[in-house]
Amino acid sequence: MAKIKVVDFLIQELANLGISRFFGLPGDYCFKIIDAVTENPETEWVGCTNELNAGYAADGYARLNGYGALITTYNVGELSAINAIGGAMAESVPVIHIVGMPSSKHIKNNTLLHHNFSTPDYFASFNAYSCFTQGAAILNEQNAKQEIERLLYLFRKHKKPVYISIPEDVCDIEIEAVPEIKSVRSDRQKLKKAVEHALKLIEKSQSPIVIGDSLIVRYDSKNEFYDFLTKSGLPATTLLMGKGLLNENCQNFIGTYLANYANPNVNYQVNNSDCPICVGTIFSDFNTLNFDIQITPDNGINIQGTYTIIQGKLYDNILMKELLNELSQNIKTQNLDFIKDKSCPAHSIINEEKPLDFEYITSRLEEFFNPDDCIFTDTGVFSYMMPCINLPENAIWYSQLLWASIGWAAPAVFGAQLAEPQKRMILLTGEGAHQLTFQTLSSMLRYEIKPVIIVLNNFGYTIERVLSGTPEAEFNNIPDWNYTKIAEDFGGNIWTAQAKTNKEFDAALRQAELAVEDKLCYIEIFTDELAIPPLMKQIYQS
Amino acid sequence: MAKIKVVDFLIQELANLGISRFFGLPGDYCFKIIDAVTENPETEWVGCTNELNAGYAADGYARLNGYGALITTYNVGELSAINAIGGAMAESVPVIHIVGMPSSKHIKNNTLLHHNFSTPDYFASFNAYSCFTQGAAILNEQNAKQEIERLLYLFRKHKKPVYISIPEDVCDIEIEAVPEIKSVRSDRQKLKKAVEHALKLIEKSQSPIVIGDSLIVRYDSKNEFYDFLTKSGLPATTLLMGKGLLNENCQNFIGTYLANYANPNVNYQVNNSDCPICVGTIFSDFNTLNFDIQITPDNGINIQGTYTIIQGKLYDNILMKELLNELSQNIKTQNLDFIKDKSCPAHSIINEEKPLDFEYITSRLEEFFNPDDCIFTDTGVFSYMMPCINLPENAIWYSQLLWASIGWAAPAVFGAQLAEPQKRMILLTGEGAHQLTFQTLSSMLRYEIKPVIIVLNNFGYTIERVLSGTPEAEFNNIPDWNYTKIAEDFGGNIWTAQAKTNKEFDAALRQAELAVEDKLCYIEIFTDELAIPPLMKQIYQS
Repeated sequence: MAKIKVVDFLIQELANLGISRFFGLPGDYCFKIIDAVTENPETEWVGCTNELNAGYAADGYARLNGYGALITTYNVGELSAINAIGGAMAESVPVIHIVGMPSSKHIKNNTLLHHNFSTPDYFASFNAYSCFTQGAAILNEQNAKQEIERLLYLFRKHKKPVYISIPEDVCDIEIEAVPEIKSVRSDRQKLKKAVEHALKLIEKSQSPIVIGDSLIVRYDSKNEFYDFLTKSGLPATTLLMGKGLLNENCQNFIGTYLANYANPNVNYQVNNSDCPICVGTIFSDFNTLNFDIQITPDNGINIQGTYTIIQGKLYDNILMKELLNELSQNIKTQNLDFIKDKSCPAHSIINEEKPLDFEYITSRLEEFFNPDDCIFTDTGVFSYMMPCINLPENAIWYSQLLWASIGWAAPAVFGAQLAEPQKRMILLTGEGAHQLTFQTLSSMLRYEIKPVIIVLNNFGYTIERVLSGTPEAEFNNIPDWNYTKIAEDFGGNIWTAQAKTNKEFDAALRQAELAVEDKLCYIEIFTDELAIPPLMKQIYQS
Repeated sequence: MAKIKVVDFLIQELANLGISRFFGLPGDYCFKIIDAVTENPETEWVGCTNELNAGYAADGYARLNGYGALITTYNVGELSAINAIGGAMAESVPVIHIVGMPSSKHIKNNTLLHHNFSTPDYFASFNAYSCFTQGAAILNEQNAKQEIERLLYLFRKHKKPVYISIPEDVCDIEIEAVPEIKSVRSDRQKLKKAVEHALKLIEKSQSPIVIGDSLIVRYDSKNEFYDFLTKSGLPATTLLMGKGLLNENCQNFIGTYLANYANPNVNYQVNNSDCPICVGTIFSDFNTLNFDIQITPDNGINIQGTYTIIQGKLYDNILMKELLNELSQNIKTQNLDFIKDKSCPAHSIINEEKPLDFEYITSRLEEFFNPDDCIFTDTGVFSYMMPCINLPENAIWYSQLLWASIGWAAPAVFGAQLAEPQKRMILLTGEGAHQLTFQTLSSMLRYEIKPVIIVLNNFGYTIERVLSGTPEAEFNNIPDWNYTKIAEDFGGNIWTAQAKTNKEFDAALRQAELAVEDKLCYIEIFTDELAIPPLMKQIYQS
């Protein structure tokens, strides 16, 4: 039987999953893994400026591409990326973290090599990663093939991170070239029963409503979800993290769920439905606007990635994709009355030149967004602006509202843009978050990607000013950088601008629309320290 | 009995240990902890640009100050710093990591708050940190005082990191204000026996030699070590990580241990001693120059922070400081012949202007170093230059040769300089390492510290070029920044220069000597891609 090296087998299988870019940094125990990536004709190495940035980039890549991969050296490299993997775990983003570690003999002898403790522990990072992944393994001669196959099965099924650490010598061990691929599919009996149960419930209900969220994208069920809506004719809303995954011009879409802060008809229909149908929802504090939602998903129909709960009954081992598909094929079209909330199209007319505020920023950005745009925001004030924007056809908002690690968005855009070079990507970030992972800008320039980046400089951590209740406290201040100049000094093809007024912002966006054809566009905008979007005022200051 | 809030008690006890600066970033669950720091008149908050930088800064601070502290928010904040804490664990640097987490009721109810998984796990980060600290706890109403006291005892005894996570509500709980302080001291019987055993062995030996290393500083035994040497008259060397902790002009110092690469007399005396006396040594690959050392510390006298092994016999629970003190008081002065290795003083005369190489850089830096300087290097080519330099009186080389996480040095200098504002601190870093934690420069400027920073721009990860065996591989390349301009764009009091030749470097150092009085000095130097110090050539290319 044909043989292949362990490391080549792993890269081959990941290439078969569609991963063509591997993010990371070199280190003296992961050279063989990086070599395998560069030698495989289907895969490429993407060098990053630090491991956290690399991890976030792999996350952004996976959100667009379906799967992503990160390569680091052991301990010092892998640990710097663990927050990125934690975020991917929280938000169900399948990123595989591949770590290169010292040879088996050193592990066996507990040799005191660098990157370890003075009393060595070769398992500390593996133990830590076991807390933040769906599955983890250190490969050895005996287990290599089975463990790779086991972890890739978990990876494909759960769409969450897995962790594989490979001792240097194990990279070169030869194993059988043919993988034993275990297919990820539903338990047919349970699927059938769940479909029957769901259909019966929907048919007898008076006011069913579909609540869609981000995990629909992660479990690769966007088309099935759309089909289900059009076949069923049911009204649908999305939670914040799912904003844009359902075309907002679709006739079933009644508006984004914003609790009692806006879209009152959506709020009423959600909270008075006798059959809420949740699909891929995350009922976290942020995503539900502080739990201001009355329904209990498990009492209605709660469709998750690998299981469904209907009226409290669990149907495990059934896939969202397949369930939605079956429902679409069997559901009777409903003719329901439902009322849409649709905010008026934005008007960003400039009567006089004024300092920038969120009213103008919001309406001007709504105009700026094009169909198919991918809009990434860092956790911060923009997270409270985006929910109230009407997105054009197939534009999607990408955020990290559950894990909410500031600094995620810029590297995520870097990865995402490498996954989809043709899409226009827009990054909205506060400068506080931006400082954490600023180097990633140089990676963007190095790899010649061309997003539009809008950095809000409001002189500190504004969200912390609001949340802390002590807006003037010293700890909310940050150093005041010359952002556009630094961006230029990274070297590369970049266009920059600054805007302090509505007129300047309008002009900058007009120019960016053209410049982005062949340049990364970087716009720094300024507001008052405490300027915040209306939704944020409603939540925290009313 | 007087009462005090949990969080105030903790900060008070840390202030009593001499910690006056707390590094970190604000986040919505750690406001109360930061408030306690700013409200305590003896302590100050130091805001950093990201958590990894904050962790490294706390490490650098602790290396100079004795103890250091880091404050972050839970999961997203703390995880970004775990590599820094891992490094502090490896190198016995006592840094306490204080984490602010959501209220007890949320932990109890497993509420789905942001910064958590979609199926919440409030213990994942605690479990991970348990792998990288001497002790860890999540405080609650019942255990708060005891757990703080327990962890601070471990902190003081082992000089390694500890981890305390405090739910928001627990911060405010009132406990007794008076701490139960358990003193850290030796077991008197064991200490007495160890002293007798050691003295007997030294007295009957023909060729004892003392090998000192970095843990002497960490266990606060520098003076006792020096006394022991002067009282005993024994010859002494240091391993790389201990370079400078023993005044190199001291008459007992025979030279740095450089295996068979240099200092042949030191090598001979170490490897032929019938009684090696190791004090605070770490026998790692890097520190011993790839294990090229013949002695087994436990067969002679191996004095570690909290235990000593003599001829294979363990004396636990005895402190390095107390043991050295007893030995000094009881040892008979030896009159031994020993030969010193001392490289000739450097001559950096410029006959003609030439591109910079390591011969010139080394000799010119040796001239530049002053008594009492603290010299920090990132793991990289400078790690192979420093061992061969003669350090002036009381100048110390700080490195992270065991954990060897690139990017550590710049934030470590930031913290160290805040601990000792009067000392001249010099940072030597490669630009590859520098990129990982570059933001820290803006923290330096914000807090107006004034180290001399020398950045070697050799167009990529040179150490990886050497170690990988494929110097031309793409993964060894990094983006080419305009370092001096970016440094200036951070805003602040900075003087910058660039040097491509010996003459330019000489001029830059002359200017820096004056400029450093009131400015941060930042010098970018350039060499060929593969220019490396002679010691590195000997090890990897001979």
